[in-house]
Amino acid sequence: MALRISDGEYGRRRERLFQRLKDRGIEAVVLFSGHNVGYFCRFAFMPTERPMAAVVTPDRAELLVPRLELEHAEENALVDKVVAYPEYPGRRPALSYLAEMLEGLGLARGALGVDQDGYARIYGSRGPKLSELTPQASVVDVLDDIEHLQMINTDEELALIRESAKWGNLAHTYLQEFSRVGVSETEISLRASLEATLAMLRALGPSYRAGAGESGAFAGFRGQIGKHSALPHAVSTNARLRPGDLLVTGADAIVWGYGSELERTMVMGEPSKEQEKFFRLMLEVQTEAIAALRPGIPCSQVDEGTLRFFREHDLQPYWRHHTGHAKSQLVHEAPFLDQGDDRVIEVGMVFTVEPGIYVPELGGFRHSDTVLVTEHGAEFLTYYPRDLESLVIPV
Amino acid sequence: MALRISDGEYGRRRERLFQRLKDRGIEAVVLFSGHNVGYFCRFAFMPTERPMAAVVTPDRAELLVPRLELEHAEENALVDKVVAYPEYPGRRPALSYLAEMLEGLGLARGALGVDQDGYARIYGSRGPKLSELTPQASVVDVLDDIEHLQMINTDEELALIRESAKWGNLAHTYLQEFSRVGVSETEISLRASLEATLAMLRALGPSYRAGAGESGAFAGFRGQIGKHSALPHAVSTNARLRPGDLLVTGADAIVWGYGSELERTMVMGEPSKEQEKFFRLMLEVQTEAIAALRPGIPCSQVDEGTLRFFREHDLQPYWRHHTGHAKSQLVHEAPFLDQGDDRVIEVGMVFTVEPGIYVPELGGFRHSDTVLVTEHGAEFLTYYPRDLESLVIPV
Repeated sequence: MALRISDGEYGRRRERLFQRLKDRGIEAVVLFSGHNVGYFCRFAFMPTERPMAAVVTPDRAELLVPRLELEHAEENALVDKVVAYPEYPGRRPALSYLAEMLEGLGLARGALGVDQDGYARIYGSRGPKLSELTPQASVVDVLDDIEHLQMINTDEELALIRESAKWGNLAHTYLQEFSRVGVSETEISLRASLEATLAMLRALGPSYRAGAGESGAFAGFRGQIGKHSALPHAVSTNARLRPGDLLVTGADAIVWGYGSELERTMVMGEPSKEQEKFFRLMLEVQTEAIAALRPGIPCSQVDEGTLRFFREHDLQPYWRHHTGHAKSQLVHEAPFLDQGDDRVIEVGMVFTVEPGIYVPELGGFRHSDTVLVTEHGAEFLTYYPRDLESLVIPV
Repeated sequence: MALRISDGEYGRRRERLFQRLKDRGIEAVVLFSGHNVGYFCRFAFMPTERPMAAVVTPDRAELLVPRLELEHAEENALVDKVVAYPEYPGRRPALSYLAEMLEGLGLARGALGVDQDGYARIYGSRGPKLSELTPQASVVDVLDDIEHLQMINTDEELALIRESAKWGNLAHTYLQEFSRVGVSETEISLRASLEATLAMLRALGPSYRAGAGESGAFAGFRGQIGKHSALPHAVSTNARLRPGDLLVTGADAIVWGYGSELERTMVMGEPSKEQEKFFRLMLEVQTEAIAALRPGIPCSQVDEGTLRFFREHDLQPYWRHHTGHAKSQLVHEAPFLDQGDDRVIEVGMVFTVEPGIYVPELGGFRHSDTVLVTEHGAEFLTYYPRDLESLVIPV
């Protein structure tokens, strides 16, 4: 299987979307987010203030781009036609070209599904809502339907996520090797990411593509070093590693737009009794949550198990967030392993499982693994060692 | 001057905002975008599906965050109070806590300015609009006012942009040094970015902060190599450099959230007559556009000069985009040096000036410099050599 999404798959995505929408009389879907345009139309680009939109019908797709993206879109997008407007803001509103496209397709009075009602206000962008632009059309929010399609990963998508996990694993291996007392987190992270990215590019060869952003594999700490490891979403303060520090890591690699999430708790030197205690509790609750994951139950059930574990072990003061989230193309995706999310878990969903324990002053304890929901339960897609012994860094 | 935005400056930002709003009876401003929360409240964080909001009045600021950001916000945000909701989606809607905050501040029936009407749909996030949440309040879009404040850079902001330009210059120097036949763009870019980032971190010391994302300096090609240099917004295809290739580069460094934009056209080996011809035209039109930039004229006037140059030199087939955009914290910002943007240029604005010439099959020609508008015209903030001789890479 080639390491990319096949053209046939893009066709099946559109078929599945209109299959879901068929009882709602929706004739076309207008996509404004770069992620959704890429998902249905194979075009990876950098969204800016210049509006972009794709109009997808059951048998046709057209793309509106600014002039500077015309050749790029013609080379890469899987659409029947690319229309370019000169520039944004320009003398004529960019989205008036969209109105014209819809008119030309006989859709200006139709029922239009949308992922959002108009182009987002990225970088100072302003534009009318689609519902203002085409007042005679009926504009229907179908983002839930689009997101549901995106939740269920096909074999082609899973092949990319599995490939991502390999190179994330390599990046994390380098991260651990390069973690030494006195070295800054940024240096360790940059060196690990560079080595893993170069290895990946050399191994996969010229067919490799990252997606819309910069290429490669990544591993780092995002500021979760020492006491700051107790902040689940710290940002880098460029700390230098010290003996006794707890480290919470993160690794990923982007392969044709798909990623994976691997996070580990590491310790600089022999762990203290307290560090060991919380590490073992974290490992236990993660293991239980992964075991609980199976098709047919609501997402909330997995998180309720985690919350029960926290209560039973008097860990509530150290609770900061839910058990995990879906993961394929974005950093986080719906649905969420959260007590308030009653969406049903299905075969083909991919989740991170990452219940964390955060002890002020002591530090944070979190592993995140990316797992696939199969008929039998959860299958690990990330596979870095999870046991404490493997994650102690000699000092 | 310390290399950061002072607390006094955050206070002045709020004062200036309410000064602009004073005739509109607006009692408070509710900010939902991470960029705007950071701009007024000094909190750099990673926006996710979990809603965040800041409520700012002339004499008070309160921040709503998910539980996992509580300690992080208390440590870093310049606000009077941080309120945390447990989790998203959670059992109780996150934004109901915002409604409660507004009620507590006596603002639920007031006139509320907003940067957007509710939290964005990031990563599967869903939530009510603020106007639905507080039906008795009058919700007024004040994003134009916020963006206008952000357009005018103070001395503290300019110090950060100037610092950014130094390290972008270093990253670009390494990029040019590391550009060799047979090496992949990703390898050159990663090595240049790593070396420049480590030098910057070592030079600036532990007070350095990047902002909400990963740290550092960056230089690369984003796919603009050889024929693909004719695509103004190409994405990386991990090409290897070959003799005769045109390269369009980009460099930046993030210093306390502020950046700069430096782009150059380079040639692998002795340029052909045709390459030389278009390079010299590009340099001429950029030089003219920078000379045209001055306070008191509309942005459109600068772009009209560029368009005239294209017509006079029969370059219209190679035109792809406008002359430039404002630049401080985001990748692109308003206003735009675009024939459709009649906003008036003011002292303290910072623009990129980057008219480009894109010749299919031959390649792209674009320099981008970041310049400050002063009383006397434009002052270069980026300063990498612009002449062809300096940008030829021996092969």
